Amino acid sequence: MFTDQYQLTMAQLYWKYGLHERTAQFDYFFRRYPDYGRHQAGYAVFAGLEWLLDWIETTRVRDEDLDRLRAQRCTSGRRRFDEGFLSWLADTCDFEGVSIRSVPEGRVVHGHAPIAIVEGPLAITQILETSFLNHLNYQTLVATKASRVAESAAGGPVLEFGMRRGPDVGTNAGTRAALIGGADASSNVGASHAMGIDPQGTHAHSMVQLFMALGEGEIGAFRAYAATYPDECLLLVDTIDTLESGIPNAITVFKELRTEGHEPVGIRLDSGDLAHLAVRSARMLDDGGFPDARIVLSSELDELAMWQIRAQIVEEAPRYGVDGAAVLHRLIYGVGTRLITSQGYSALGGVYKLVAIDGTGEWLPAMKISDTPEKMPIPGDKRVWRIYDDRGLATADVVSAGNEDLSFGESLDLYHPHRAGIIRRLENIRDVEELVVPSYRDGERIGSTPSLDEMRRRRIADLERLDVGVRRLVNPHVYHVSLTQSVKQLQGELIARERPGN
Amino acid sequence: MFTDQYQLTMAQLYWKYGLHERTAQFDYFFRRYPDYGRHQAGYAVFAGLEWLLDWIETTRVRDEDLDRLRAQRCTSGRRRFDEGFLSWLADTCDFEGVSIRSVPEGRVVHGHAPIAIVEGPLAITQILETSFLNHLNYQTLVATKASRVAESAAGGPVLEFGMRRGPDVGTNAGTRAALIGGADASSNVGASHAMGIDPQGTHAHSMVQLFMALGEGEIGAFRAYAATYPDECLLLVDTIDTLESGIPNAITVFKELRTEGHEPVGIRLDSGDLAHLAVRSARMLDDGGFPDARIVLSSELDELAMWQIRAQIVEEAPRYGVDGAAVLHRLIYGVGTRLITSQGYSALGGVYKLVAIDGTGEWLPAMKISDTPEKMPIPGDKRVWRIYDDRGLATADVVSAGNEDLSFGESLDLYHPHRAGIIRRLENIRDVEELVVPSYRDGERIGSTPSLDEMRRRRIADLERLDVGVRRLVNPHVYHVSLTQSVKQLQGELIARERPGN
Repeated sequence: MFTDQYQLTMAQLYWKYGLHERTAQFDYFFRRYPDYGRHQAGYAVFAGLEWLLDWIETTRVRDEDLDRLRAQRCTSGRRRFDEGFLSWLADTCDFEGVSIRSVPEGRVVHGHAPIAIVEGPLAITQILETSFLNHLNYQTLVATKASRVAESAAGGPVLEFGMRRGPDVGTNAGTRAALIGGADASSNVGASHAMGIDPQGTHAHSMVQLFMALGEGEIGAFRAYAATYPDECLLLVDTIDTLESGIPNAITVFKELRTEGHEPVGIRLDSGDLAHLAVRSARMLDDGGFPDARIVLSSELDELAMWQIRAQIVEEAPRYGVDGAAVLHRLIYGVGTRLITSQGYSALGGVYKLVAIDGTGEWLPAMKISDTPEKMPIPGDKRVWRIYDDRGLATADVVSAGNEDLSFGESLDLYHPHRAGIIRRLENIRDVEELVVPSYRDGERIGSTPSLDEMRRRRIADLERLDVGVRRLVNPHVYHVSLTQSVKQLQGELIARERPGN
Repeated sequence: MFTDQYQLTMAQLYWKYGLHERTAQFDYFFRRYPDYGRHQAGYAVFAGLEWLLDWIETTRVRDEDLDRLRAQRCTSGRRRFDEGFLSWLADTCDFEGVSIRSVPEGRVVHGHAPIAIVEGPLAITQILETSFLNHLNYQTLVATKASRVAESAAGGPVLEFGMRRGPDVGTNAGTRAALIGGADASSNVGASHAMGIDPQGTHAHSMVQLFMALGEGEIGAFRAYAATYPDECLLLVDTIDTLESGIPNAITVFKELRTEGHEPVGIRLDSGDLAHLAVRSARMLDDGGFPDARIVLSSELDELAMWQIRAQIVEEAPRYGVDGAAVLHRLIYGVGTRLITSQGYSALGGVYKLVAIDGTGEWLPAMKISDTPEKMPIPGDKRVWRIYDDRGLATADVVSAGNEDLSFGESLDLYHPHRAGIIRRLENIRDVEELVVPSYRDGERIGSTPSLDEMRRRRIADLERLDVGVRRLVNPHVYHVSLTQSVKQLQGELIARERPGN
């Protein structure tokens, strides 16, 4: 019963009118890229699909759900759900009749173009809506943020640390999306194990506090840590005072560790002016004989904060006789709250819209007319293509009619998805790729579940083929999403039919 | 394994040093109230406790978890976790030895004062941290937002509609928190059933689109809905054009329904200028003979948007010959994305800090020293009290030492939690209530799980005893959280001991 109530009331209505098994098509897409306020995304990374398919494969209506639905009453005291409907629901709501075409998980996606297309019995595809949106919106949101964070890290490792501020058990989905989108590892033990990778983490302030309360001081805590994890010694140095206490104590312990034949990993800074402290720590570690010790930064990081920190390090390093590039090279980023909650833009507005209904053999296109042209979905049965230019870069995502094949074109006329009369002619097409491909049919996944590595490789390959201007963190260039002439024509006809006055 | 990796690495260190079963105390508290940008909270509503206790009662280390931990390797290739530690973990990590004192769920809470105090074996209470924060931070965040939305609704019903944009399965926790904090019902079927209430919902645009695609038009959809749910007929009127099509069609169907002996419930507006459309719709419904029909508003609502809409309605209603107060009285609010994601402030910064460790019979206070005085937790074993003045209003939350009893005082000297020398003398104390009370001990809850109604009553009672200035939506008055003299003194001594230079 992971759905909204109105999906069930609508489903019952369809059942009553004999429409429940008419085949319907719904598109999943988003309109706006995340806008975090001072910075904005020019692309998104699609995530959540495989967990959605897991949910579809395993979800059934249980007897206790039926009992709960039987117990629902109208204001008049009558039962809200008819026994006949409930019995149909119990028999049919296993999603066997649903098929899904989708962009593969991990790939770069854009606004307005369908990312997934669902086809199946009307009442079932309707009930599916809520779970569909819930699974895809949040993970795509977090994967997109993670991709930006990774871009800002410029090759430095990114660790996802957001569990303690994440949304209840939804945090596991957030960790997964972060790992697909750009994080190298996570502190979340269960989610990391489920994704087949080792979780990461060292110690917290509380361990230092404890040794202080017992009279052993910060250095006692550091010594205990080094003795327990001699090959993974990474020390949190800001419990008392980073420069006066933490770093000197860490260096003392690192030297002791080296005499026993172990090289330390590094230190973690979790408060204060991270850029300044990174430069100062780098200098102290260099002078102490540990020029390779890593510096982990954490505390309210996001792509913009990291960008700013890196710029400040380059500017400030020479003043302390340190090579800024070398400091950047030893950084590791622990990114928590702002990644797992996509701070600044807390929800992707992905929608699931009815676009066609089976009219005994042919698709009847459906459309929501709106005063806001951007809010109108693209009607009818469709296919989605990505066009690569002669530089090998993605230049447009194009939505064609279901019976159009764009594979072999060398040029193409593109129409704006919601403004009239804007045509762009594409020449020099090097490659055309069908983007939305079969992923679920007859109660089964098509192909095997991709590994984390495979999903990451898809993202990296797509980012490499994306214009740098579209990837930039602030005010990105707008990527083209367009319609073919026949889709544009259908859209115009439907608007004219439903609102002849306009 | 719903925890962060560093909890496990620290736990193993404590085990290695024989500290793992030393009794430790941790405080859960937050420092800052949510600040949504243009508006800010002056209080929070505590939620998540009962689900946290459920988690504690049912969570065990499984064999597959141990296998995963056994498989973790250090960079040197050695196993990261010792078999002795894992076997201790499997035996002990059932949280039997943990006891929790807490503010009861649903109550109003404030910054800096402990909301929950955890006592138990060091290594186990440390491992508990992540789940503790995860369960309480998100639900308290959403319950607080819901309380503000309910205040802004000024008695009008609030429906939680956020599932499709909520954070994966975490959305169920969000729905629950919203119901505790101020929402009257939710569209989330499973979560509503679990909370023992009926979910709410009617139909979506897709149902209207479908009937349009089949050539039956918007009115066909409305007739079908009225026929299926004659006693619960609430129609979504903005699929084509609210004033030109939706409302006239709804009135036609409402009249037909009335001739069959049923009164309609109302309409839902989901786009456009909601205030303006509410006034215009109210007028049309009045003229059509349906002055009691409710008007549900939805689309990007939050407390500030609702406040603005209500103000505009009052101002605009006379221009259309409508009584503004009457329009307000018929409103129902569907609040989705901005509630479930706490838009503008996406994470509560609740923390879990070591404050004391058993020093063979007496508590050794622990503290994190910091350059930022607000970041220093309140050390030692403590009790938390709420003081009511002679008006019966809550005037301060006071943190005392564990051996202090404030129950019977008539006056009290209060010390600022992190500034020196600020004393306020409280006279005319009418009542003193101990706020943090036993909730879990010896592997069991103390008392029974409270019902949703009970948690809601706690919130309402607390809000009634809270100053209006603290409750206001923008720039709220600051509620006093203070220390007794003996706690203040201990704090000063610890700072002097750890950083004698300061």
